[in-house]
Amino acid sequence: MSDSKLRNEALKYHQYPTPGKIQVVPTKKHATQKDLSLAYTPGVAVPCLEIEKNSEDAYKYTSKGNLVAVISNGTAVLGLGDIGALAGKPVMEGKGLLFKIFADIDVFDIEVDTHDVEKFIETVKNIAPTFGGINLEDIKAPEAFEIERRLKEELDIPVMHDDQHGTAIISAAALKNAVELAGKDLSKVKIVVSGAGAAAISCSRLYLSIGVKRENLIMCDSKGVIRKDIDNLTEQKSEFATDRDLHTLEEAMIDSDVFIGLSKGNLVSPELLMSMAKNPIVFAMANPTPEIEYELAVKTRKDIIMATGRSDNPNQVNNVLGFPFIFRGALDVRATGINEEMKIAAVHALANLAKETVPEQVNIAYGKLNMQFGREYIIPSPFDHRLITEVPLAVAKAAMDSGIAKRPITDWDAYKEELAERLGSGNKFIRMLMSKAKSNPKTIIFAEADHLHVLKAAQIIHEEGVGIPILMGDKAVIEELMKEINFEGNITIIDPTDSGEKERRHKFAKLYWEKRQRNGITLLAAQRLMRGRNYFAAMMVNEGEADSLVTGYSRSYPATVKPMIELIGKEKVLKKLLLQIL
Amino acid sequence: MSDSKLRNEALKYHQYPTPGKIQVVPTKKHATQKDLSLAYTPGVAVPCLEIEKNSEDAYKYTSKGNLVAVISNGTAVLGLGDIGALAGKPVMEGKGLLFKIFADIDVFDIEVDTHDVEKFIETVKNIAPTFGGINLEDIKAPEAFEIERRLKEELDIPVMHDDQHGTAIISAAALKNAVELAGKDLSKVKIVVSGAGAAAISCSRLYLSIGVKRENLIMCDSKGVIRKDIDNLTEQKSEFATDRDLHTLEEAMIDSDVFIGLSKGNLVSPELLMSMAKNPIVFAMANPTPEIEYELAVKTRKDIIMATGRSDNPNQVNNVLGFPFIFRGALDVRATGINEEMKIAAVHALANLAKETVPEQVNIAYGKLNMQFGREYIIPSPFDHRLITEVPLAVAKAAMDSGIAKRPITDWDAYKEELAERLGSGNKFIRMLMSKAKSNPKTIIFAEADHLHVLKAAQIIHEEGVGIPILMGDKAVIEELMKEINFEGNITIIDPTDSGEKERRHKFAKLYWEKRQRNGITLLAAQRLMRGRNYFAAMMVNEGEADSLVTGYSRSYPATVKPMIELIGKEKVLKKLLLQIL
Repeated sequence: MSDSKLRNEALKYHQYPTPGKIQVVPTKKHATQKDLSLAYTPGVAVPCLEIEKNSEDAYKYTSKGNLVAVISNGTAVLGLGDIGALAGKPVMEGKGLLFKIFADIDVFDIEVDTHDVEKFIETVKNIAPTFGGINLEDIKAPEAFEIERRLKEELDIPVMHDDQHGTAIISAAALKNAVELAGKDLSKVKIVVSGAGAAAISCSRLYLSIGVKRENLIMCDSKGVIRKDIDNLTEQKSEFATDRDLHTLEEAMIDSDVFIGLSKGNLVSPELLMSMAKNPIVFAMANPTPEIEYELAVKTRKDIIMATGRSDNPNQVNNVLGFPFIFRGALDVRATGINEEMKIAAVHALANLAKETVPEQVNIAYGKLNMQFGREYIIPSPFDHRLITEVPLAVAKAAMDSGIAKRPITDWDAYKEELAERLGSGNKFIRMLMSKAKSNPKTIIFAEADHLHVLKAAQIIHEEGVGIPILMGDKAVIEELMKEINFEGNITIIDPTDSGEKERRHKFAKLYWEKRQRNGITLLAAQRLMRGRNYFAAMMVNEGEADSLVTGYSRSYPATVKPMIELIGKEKVLKKLLLQIL
Repeated sequence: MSDSKLRNEALKYHQYPTPGKIQVVPTKKHATQKDLSLAYTPGVAVPCLEIEKNSEDAYKYTSKGNLVAVISNGTAVLGLGDIGALAGKPVMEGKGLLFKIFADIDVFDIEVDTHDVEKFIETVKNIAPTFGGINLEDIKAPEAFEIERRLKEELDIPVMHDDQHGTAIISAAALKNAVELAGKDLSKVKIVVSGAGAAAISCSRLYLSIGVKRENLIMCDSKGVIRKDIDNLTEQKSEFATDRDLHTLEEAMIDSDVFIGLSKGNLVSPELLMSMAKNPIVFAMANPTPEIEYELAVKTRKDIIMATGRSDNPNQVNNVLGFPFIFRGALDVRATGINEEMKIAAVHALANLAKETVPEQVNIAYGKLNMQFGREYIIPSPFDHRLITEVPLAVAKAAMDSGIAKRPITDWDAYKEELAERLGSGNKFIRMLMSKAKSNPKTIIFAEADHLHVLKAAQIIHEEGVGIPILMGDKAVIEELMKEINFEGNITIIDPTDSGEKERRHKFAKLYWEKRQRNGITLLAAQRLMRGRNYFAAMMVNEGEADSLVTGYSRSYPATVKPMIELIGKEKVLKKLLLQIL
């Protein structure tokens, strides 16, 4: 999107039809005078008195337990600097929106008009009874450190400054997996951190917590390497000052294993990148322009493992992978804070999730054939619906194990179900995926299209506009079946055994044979294979003639069709259909 | 409802299925990655920068302009006293719910944990950028006076302490109309105010603003009449101290015209009431038990004009008539405060509205035949959907006229339409009415049930369960028509000309004749009249055999059926039907 187009769309999005992005709505009946007599006087006095007797009952009778404050004084909003409390409001509202759609947490955004640390702390403490948790946001360093430290100490609800810990948690998960893929060892990797702000400090601290050695970490600010011999370092910077005789970023980068960028765009040249060790790990997280552009970096080093803050590159270090789920877990066990154990649990949960088989839905959403743990997939995607169950659960467990959970969970299966239901059994994700799929529909080959239920799935894909089906099989049979189910439209049907496909068969056979001849495949055998629909279809995908493939038909529930059916949310209808024909 | 039943229901209402009464939801699309790139980074930076340049743009791009804080420190919650900030949360959430359903205003309830006036003020000032207005709630006197005064002075958004001004505004409207009905004059009525808290002071001040004379107002606290010769009076009390030689409430009440009760239940005995002047006006507003129970008061004095704070008596002085609409008007012209002019405008708008013809919907909701301006109807009902247009409009005008409107309205018709649409063209009210009707369905006689459209209306009333229709007319004709429209059910059909109705005809005729014989009606003539459906039906209602009556059939749009049709929200369907048969 061009800058001026983004500008216009962003303003329109925020202004119409009503200003802003949120509203507050009742969750309880309010249609009758009787309802109102419960919601307000005289009925409301009853829960008031219960809470007066036992303050924990506020979690039973008010919204407190699911309500997080996103609080900022607007001193470090995005990359925009100190734009003031009020000007930061769109960001805080947006953050609230993310909390809601990713973890079903309600948010009041609170803009606090003061630069004074003490006044800020007192204000937050005074309004704290309102909330079940506090997410500090976009407060500049070093004030942010003191504010967070004091509020964590003085309040008994979860408090987290997301700018510090969000990036730390997500990038730590990515780092753990990247180091493993690079065949290296966390305790040995040499890390250069570019930037010394709140996020950089917190990232560095968390990396140490998961196994990085302090002596292997060099931090640079805008003036170069932070060394012990520099005068007047802030407390935070001196924590990471080195006694090695390094002065510039360039010097530090030589033979380093990991570069962590939390500074500014285009700081890292190809030459600098070349100076790093083998299988370099580069997290260029400056926003919106990374320290080195993704394309340039991967062109410069084929052996790179790269992450950025951008959604248009692989491996996006996106805070939304963290804060919604960390607060979800913390709220659900009524943790009195968010401690190191909980953050580290989130790191491991995220890192582990990236190693699990990727759900078909996520593949489809990203238009990938088969995303799997590897250089281009070291952290889960925000569209992965398993996040809502895996991460809060790990965080909740850690809170319990570290003894700060006021309402421990006993039935973990029930909790997991509750989490899944938070987002309507993943319906929001499914809708999100559908919209994404619609915006750029992919061609999908249905290799067994002469089976009615496969054809029906193709029809739904077609009618919902989420994909462009290519049907494979006997043309006459398929056309007859299509009539039967009123499947209309200009649909491509391919029969690989057709004489008209001879040329493609031979082309595919040759390509296949060239790759596989060392396995003992003959060209003739390959030509024969290509009469099979699955082989033919796979080669089409291979050659870019189609985007993806639904193969196989099984007499039991056809596993490969299932994700499609789930995607389009008509499982029940199709299940019924399947029962009829199987 | 019994106390223990209310208790159970109130706790269940607040606890299930989710704790509390509110949630925060997105108002903008958020299904795709593109939506999120507008709601959050990178798009969100655009409105941030606009607001940084021009702070007024916060009203364009954030929820600020429709967002009110309901803020309390819990020091005077309902009649419960100082139960603490957290224990007051159910009330504050409830207040937010009322703001939303009555005036479509979003509310963050904020519980502030401090008793210190300065700290409270500073906290509210610090978080004020978040909001378009501030409703202070349940803060004890005298601190409440200072807090409100200072915040009004130091903030440039509307601030109102509803406990003070809400009751003042509603009761002033009621007082104005009551005095008129009593044939008296505001400038001459003698008023006794029982109570000297925040509400009593504010009521008294506002009464003076609308024409009551200071020398005609006597205020009593728990120790008796507040006189100038009493030492150490608070500033507020001395404002209303009298130099008359009165000591007790009993002495003050003698020959008084108006009693304003803001004190405690059962303080006024029948004897005390008897000592008041002719056509006494008694507003017994102590909650939940009035200073004198309604039934006892009206039994004691037939000439009384009485109001209470209870919804089960006529003339409920209910703050919900005020605050939603006052803030609505103030927000809509971006008033920099809520001044006296605006409050007085609300008083007159409410008083005037009570004199307008009552919409049939309100009659039905209250199960009344025909509510009209009079002793039992001196202020509008909360279910009157005209409130949302009339009151905010008057308040907005007053803000403009007094020069504190930052965004004056130019097109008043458009504004009125916008207001009506706020509640979905009154749909919420209609739903509220329907629910009310369903909870206690009334019997309604359809006197012309042999006309298809009347029968159709009866059918809807029956099927929606909002009433129990009694059909009147030729049985065979009606039964035939019922079959035609599939109107099924165990419905009473009455044909007054039927021989089986002879007994009732004669009974009704006799009653009618006894009342009307001086008009020259003979018994025989009356018996003949009772063969007419409208007369027979009217007598049934008169004798309590039915609750209400839909009479008359006109060749044009049948006016008496119309409100029914509107009530059940199927006007379009019926209009179509009418066009076919008329």
